[in-house]
Amino acid sequence: MLRHVVLFKFKDSSTPAQIKEVEDAFRKLPSKVKEVKGFEWGTNNSPEGLAQGFTHVFFVSFDSEAGREVYLPHPEHKAFVKVLEPHLDKVLVVDYWTQE
Amino acid sequence: MLRHVVLFKFKDSSTPAQIKEVEDAFRKLPSKVKEVKGFEWGTNNSPEGLAQGFTHVFFVSFDSEAGREVYLPHPEHKAFVKVLEPHLDKVLVVDYWTQE
Repeated sequence: MLRHVVLFKFKDSSTPAQIKEVEDAFRKLPSKVKEVKGFEWGTNNSPEGLAQGFTHVFFVSFDSEAGREVYLPHPEHKAFVKVLEPHLDKVLVVDYWTQE
Repeated sequence: MLRHVVLFKFKDSSTPAQIKEVEDAFRKLPSKVKEVKGFEWGTNNSPEGLAQGFTHVFFVSFDSEAGREVYLPHPEHKAFVKVLEPHLDKVLVVDYWTQE
């Protein structure tokens, strides 16, 4: 699988309700973009203190690079980014083909 | 599941062979630490340019926080870190309980 790993740090000024709005918007994306084949997310609880301020991890899976190419410019993804942008402090994205 | 997401950026001075040594050492960990319940890894191929220099993703799964607590100080994990350290430029770690 092709994994798309997205980390967010939200602005200190964003309220829990506003952050939840972003979480919920991202959670709806898989149902709106059929190329998304897997999705999970969570908030950081690492005891190691190496998260560099990132609090949220969204883990999206595709079965081809063509699927990712449809997803990234997709209108529903762009609509999500509109919800995200006012609250985003930092983002980090790494994608990888799974190996064992 | 409890996910342990580890990102590495290696030193420019580290050779491909030395990086492969680190990759192979990490890949052996699941067989040496029974608390590791899932493992996959890969190298970044995101077209978005938001990886902040990180090239490697290791995605380790536990089924409890107790499992992570055994893993982090485990002698085999420490032995891996010894292999890693001379080549490590940057590390980022986020852990999360999977949500949908």
